Amino acid sequence: MVTDAADMDAYLSEPRDLFHGDALCVVRPEDAGEVARVLALCNELGVGIVPQGGNTGLVGGQTPDMSGRQIVLSLQRLDRVREVDPSSDAMTLEAGVTLARAQEIAQSVDRYFPLSLASEGSCTIGGNLATNAGGVHVLAYGAARDLVFGLEVALADGRILSTLGKLRKDNTGYNLTQLFVGSEGTLGVITAATLKLFPRPRSRAVAFLGLDDPAKALALLNFMKGHAGPGLHAFELIPRVGLELVLRHIPGARDPLLSPHPWYALLEIAGFAEGEAERTAALSLAQALEAGLAHDATIAQSLDQAESLWRLRESLSEAQKREGGSIKHDVSVPIERIPAFIAEAGARIAAAFPQARPVPFGHMGDGNLHYNVSQPVGADKAAFLARWDEMNEIVHGLVHDYGGSISAEHGIGRLKRNLLARVKDPVALDLMRALKKTLDPRGVLNPGKLI
Amino acid sequence: MVTDAADMDAYLSEPRDLFHGDALCVVRPEDAGEVARVLALCNELGVGIVPQGGNTGLVGGQTPDMSGRQIVLSLQRLDRVREVDPSSDAMTLEAGVTLARAQEIAQSVDRYFPLSLASEGSCTIGGNLATNAGGVHVLAYGAARDLVFGLEVALADGRILSTLGKLRKDNTGYNLTQLFVGSEGTLGVITAATLKLFPRPRSRAVAFLGLDDPAKALALLNFMKGHAGPGLHAFELIPRVGLELVLRHIPGARDPLLSPHPWYALLEIAGFAEGEAERTAALSLAQALEAGLAHDATIAQSLDQAESLWRLRESLSEAQKREGGSIKHDVSVPIERIPAFIAEAGARIAAAFPQARPVPFGHMGDGNLHYNVSQPVGADKAAFLARWDEMNEIVHGLVHDYGGSISAEHGIGRLKRNLLARVKDPVALDLMRALKKTLDPRGVLNPGKLI
Repeated sequence: MVTDAADMDAYLSEPRDLFHGDALCVVRPEDAGEVARVLALCNELGVGIVPQGGNTGLVGGQTPDMSGRQIVLSLQRLDRVREVDPSSDAMTLEAGVTLARAQEIAQSVDRYFPLSLASEGSCTIGGNLATNAGGVHVLAYGAARDLVFGLEVALADGRILSTLGKLRKDNTGYNLTQLFVGSEGTLGVITAATLKLFPRPRSRAVAFLGLDDPAKALALLNFMKGHAGPGLHAFELIPRVGLELVLRHIPGARDPLLSPHPWYALLEIAGFAEGEAERTAALSLAQALEAGLAHDATIAQSLDQAESLWRLRESLSEAQKREGGSIKHDVSVPIERIPAFIAEAGARIAAAFPQARPVPFGHMGDGNLHYNVSQPVGADKAAFLARWDEMNEIVHGLVHDYGGSISAEHGIGRLKRNLLARVKDPVALDLMRALKKTLDPRGVLNPGKLI
Repeated sequence: MVTDAADMDAYLSEPRDLFHGDALCVVRPEDAGEVARVLALCNELGVGIVPQGGNTGLVGGQTPDMSGRQIVLSLQRLDRVREVDPSSDAMTLEAGVTLARAQEIAQSVDRYFPLSLASEGSCTIGGNLATNAGGVHVLAYGAARDLVFGLEVALADGRILSTLGKLRKDNTGYNLTQLFVGSEGTLGVITAATLKLFPRPRSRAVAFLGLDDPAKALALLNFMKGHAGPGLHAFELIPRVGLELVLRHIPGARDPLLSPHPWYALLEIAGFAEGEAERTAALSLAQALEAGLAHDATIAQSLDQAESLWRLRESLSEAQKREGGSIKHDVSVPIERIPAFIAEAGARIAAAFPQARPVPFGHMGDGNLHYNVSQPVGADKAAFLARWDEMNEIVHGLVHDYGGSISAEHGIGRLKRNLLARVKDPVALDLMRALKKTLDPRGVLNPGKLI
């Protein structure tokens, strides 16, 4: 147990310090039994518990409120590997194992664990599942939700539920596992998970293409899905304005194509037979160029080149940060509507925020855009950021009109809790509240988050 | 509404007539609104409702009890196609659309809907989702649960919940969709679903291999997963005793290999580039033969040949039926334990049922065996079938010891309800009961089924 103020600090705010709070103490249990005992006690006393993994969440789900009356429950010491079974394509890890370590464990038995995101060095499996983390390979493998066989969960009353197991098929009752995935610690505390392993791709091709507009990107996406099938591992959209920010602010970044294009697609193809990815990429991209879906394309000729291309994409947030203030949205719309959404959102923002610079980029293959708007050149950063809610209103309103989601992959947490009540179907909200009451009648699990 | 006894008959028993019942009436609403009104009324009056799709379930979930006081709610008239959007890889269908029609709709827009099972001509999307149907392509695409974006569900109190939508990523609250999938009509009545579409494979290879034993089958499965990745669409295990029954009873069936082998694997590989499946199959099978994983192999050279190979596998149940009595188990164990499970189950059955003939076949790639035991040659069928429970006890006990499931894909229904209470984790059972009470406090939804 940590009660010293200085030692507690690291648990009370998140790295960007957008969310912070106070707490009675930080508890660091060693195993699921200890987690369950903490829960039972807090439930009896009516003390709010804030579960925390790697503390990398972006919506404030993992930090306590300002009351100083909640406790932070760190899962970091639950970091044992319980079992790795490559023949059943399964591994059972405790909640505090980091995502990067989970990937390494898979690799050590010649398997692949596809979840991959920017914070993978510090985020944990428990947090990934509690927030249903997304990342760059959702297109081919789904989100965290799709990568789990079963869970061990400490319930509010101190009982431990286990759906752990390595079964691909088990039709014996309600799916309790999926109830906890994405519930942001409000229904139970995940203490361990059996995760799915996949065959390791033996070949990989990464390509960067210059395009006219998002409509061409959509056509290219459909074309590539048809030609690479489940081998299409990633399809990311990048606007020229975003690439320019990267070229300006990120040391070592260079434009991979000879001349500029209004839009870009970064795509990755995986293959299992020798040379399959390269063959598929070369053939299909030649056809795509011939069909006018793209104007120029480069295929990475080495691992280094592949990593450079990916770095362009992954540096977008950092480059926007260095350029000044940016107002962020993590949204999704049906894939087919992305071009119309980008056009209409751009027009509305131009009307309300003249000179502001939308940089719509992200996982186009999943319909997920990080629709981040950079401040006008030379404008006052604070004044721009002060209009955060107004900008959100415009973008989220449009997302709603397009049948989209205001939180594609980052979750609700504290940031979007009030918003949720406005956009969610009332029957769904009502059911969510009923489930919360059933599983956490005293309301001690991550109070004030999500619901 | 159907009340005439003769007209009602078709809804009161299922095709095998293992389960039948009586009912106040059969209602056949036309749309979700009518379904909801029926539910509201029954909820008020405390009348039990038995939802029914294509009436093809194997565990009695879709037939009423003998009291004559329940009503059957047929979803067959809800058969509209609400939307097909190939660019977003999504289609929204009403619950009564048959699976075969759903497959055709996907094909008509150059997409693939991978759910495929023996009863696809008459089973419905609503029933597939309510029971989380499996089938032959779970290995590559998952079960029905994995093929749905969202649902429209009529709740016990007559409200309609909609999570319909075409979003691959939506982290805004608890996953209500997955709560209803596999709940066998006990938490709500599915009236429509948005289903996932996939790129259509452009090449396909079907192969039939002769093997020494299940351990070799496991090694071959792992080998093929490594070489075909997600292109491995099916991997089915067949014992020689099963093939012999098919050759004896199914007209036109012939042994595809020159000499007999103790075990067989049927596998299907799909590809997206031209000729990819054939190339992968030829190369990897040559290597597998060289490595001694299989003794002989044939690859179908035409669509006709591919269908003949599949027919051998799909005729196993029918052949067992013609051979006499057979006692069935739909079980799964972790894939890695299949060889040991088959050996131990065989030994135990030999001890208790001398001369009985286990025919363990099925979806080895998913860890799912249809462990069906044929009666001894010349024995009395009725006397053998009278020992059904005793046989179940042996097999299900062993499944439990192996960390497996007593219902891999067929569900619980009436058949296994009492069994469930014995094998399920008590905390899980308790949570299931709490969810049932939250969503159906008066217990009107499919009473006496599952829980």
